[in-house]
Amino acid sequence: MSMSPPILALTMGDPAGTGPELLAKALSQPDVRALARLVVVGDAEVMRAAVTVVGGAAKVRVVSDVGNAGGDPTTIDVVDLGNVPTGELQRGTVSPLSGRAAYDYIRRAVDLTLGGVTHAVVTAALNKASLHAAGYHYDGHTELLAELCGKPRVTMMLVAGNLRICHVSTHVSLREAIDRVRPERIVAVLRLAHDGIRELGIAEPKLAVAGLNPHAGEGGLFGDEEQRYIAPAIEQAVAAGLKVSGPYAGDTVFFRTLNREFDGAIAMYHDQGHVAAKMLGIWQGVNVTLGLPIIRTSVEHGTDFANAGTGRGDPRSLIEALKLAATMASNRLRDSGTALKTVARG
Amino acid sequence: MSMSPPILALTMGDPAGTGPELLAKALSQPDVRALARLVVVGDAEVMRAAVTVVGGAAKVRVVSDVGNAGGDPTTIDVVDLGNVPTGELQRGTVSPLSGRAAYDYIRRAVDLTLGGVTHAVVTAALNKASLHAAGYHYDGHTELLAELCGKPRVTMMLVAGNLRICHVSTHVSLREAIDRVRPERIVAVLRLAHDGIRELGIAEPKLAVAGLNPHAGEGGLFGDEEQRYIAPAIEQAVAAGLKVSGPYAGDTVFFRTLNREFDGAIAMYHDQGHVAAKMLGIWQGVNVTLGLPIIRTSVEHGTDFANAGTGRGDPRSLIEALKLAATMASNRLRDSGTALKTVARG
Repeated sequence: MSMSPPILALTMGDPAGTGPELLAKALSQPDVRALARLVVVGDAEVMRAAVTVVGGAAKVRVVSDVGNAGGDPTTIDVVDLGNVPTGELQRGTVSPLSGRAAYDYIRRAVDLTLGGVTHAVVTAALNKASLHAAGYHYDGHTELLAELCGKPRVTMMLVAGNLRICHVSTHVSLREAIDRVRPERIVAVLRLAHDGIRELGIAEPKLAVAGLNPHAGEGGLFGDEEQRYIAPAIEQAVAAGLKVSGPYAGDTVFFRTLNREFDGAIAMYHDQGHVAAKMLGIWQGVNVTLGLPIIRTSVEHGTDFANAGTGRGDPRSLIEALKLAATMASNRLRDSGTALKTVARG
Repeated sequence: MSMSPPILALTMGDPAGTGPELLAKALSQPDVRALARLVVVGDAEVMRAAVTVVGGAAKVRVVSDVGNAGGDPTTIDVVDLGNVPTGELQRGTVSPLSGRAAYDYIRRAVDLTLGGVTHAVVTAALNKASLHAAGYHYDGHTELLAELCGKPRVTMMLVAGNLRICHVSTHVSLREAIDRVRPERIVAVLRLAHDGIRELGIAEPKLAVAGLNPHAGEGGLFGDEEQRYIAPAIEQAVAAGLKVSGPYAGDTVFFRTLNREFDGAIAMYHDQGHVAAKMLGIWQGVNVTLGLPIIRTSVEHGTDFANAGTGRGDPRSLIEALKLAATMASNRLRDSGTALKTVARG
């Protein structure tokens, strides 16, 4: 029996942003539809308007049997939360209505995926101000998802082509980020990176660890965190069987990873990794949350309010996020199938 | 009367590295020779060997009248310090002999340029360990040059295509770098960046200032250095007539600068700017020291000991450094000509 393709739950994102239009664009591409079964979790009326804005031909259909949806490439299947009343959508502006709607899409997509109805969540952009206006006080998607999934330790992985970067910390001040450079945390991130990159199809990922200080501290000349915390963490990870090396000078390790010397790199703080990934283009990167019980990928840009309603939004990041989620979901389905077979044999 | 082209003093760098071979390659290219008059400050015998290694056809000639040298594209003119005795060159290894020789080239090139005989210094790579072995304890070229020029305040500008990045600090620990984010220092770097980029031919450079914390602190949520120190520095610079804006999120400001939204960007610390520049290729970037009384550009890579003696070193960074120095020297000569004329008229 061949496995049926995975179903991805795509959140519509902030309805006032470009999310609906980017989905309308992406879901009209045959190569994207061939990746997996795709179901939008959003508002059907907003999706219909978005298809019109981008000049698309797809039908928008409201579905209730999600487990059997998403397979017809001429149709955009929507789990319709109906939470954007006709005439109340103000594109390109912050509002509690949009923030609440966006929150509800995420919550439903997570529930569907935790329940095994769908196999991954792919998220369009949130507007943090709208989310806050609606009373949801999260620093971003990642923190919200962690809470909806029982607060496991998570790490943000940025993916841009074959550059994969995980972060020891993200949304904290740089001073606080330095304080978080400790072996326990670095080892935890290395384990999450290892498992996440394996799920992308690389059996034994080679991981590079960046230093914190310039030139990775130049032997203690510019800071000692490399010797005190980072090198011991690498030793622990190696002792646990991971293929890890470093600490390497932060300014070249990401370029070296891009050039396939490593399968992934660990950044010590937000900008170290994000500067690297975003130099490759701010409209192509993908954000993957590792450590959740579910697979989750996301666009790596914002709501792009300036282009909302124009049809000019750039769908590349969303398409890359869909591709990654499809790969990870297929691999997880295949591996769980194998695992079951093994159990049956035993 | 048309001005004669500027003369650039090219240091040979550590003789055990690829510097001599990269010079032999670069100086055999007619387009490079057309940029300016080029004189190597080094060791003639090492240069002859390098020409042989790379299979070049140029003659190596020892010159004493430097002010009239460097104009024949079939000849590599060398100010010969004769400091690498025959048979003592050990390519690809650290040694006090190489460190001392490299130091002497820099010192002579700086003297020639401070004396107005040459118009800019372009440096090949140093090996810091060899320099230390020879008893010269500098963190790098920049610190050494600053000392030879009377210790003015300097800043390192990285240039990669139209991406120009200046740094508020470089070779200090990240913790110390945070402490250096203060208005007085930021304003000084902005002035140096403004003057340096003008000398590249951009009349009124638009400068972007990066934040220190993720998302430039997200309104104080992740650190307050943006509000306490960076924003006031920007206000002071604007009040002084510079075209400056920010603070911008560090992870996108360099990409935006690369895409010509700004003419230059200010990084708050070493890796923030260096990660950005080096993602564009570690063999193409150029390092420019701003704030010295002389023009100085440099390769942005090391001695590449692994390739020394093989002829396989990559000369792109050196060629870009030569181009930049030629542009800056031509502009300075032209402007000083104009200034003299203006004085004569007044």
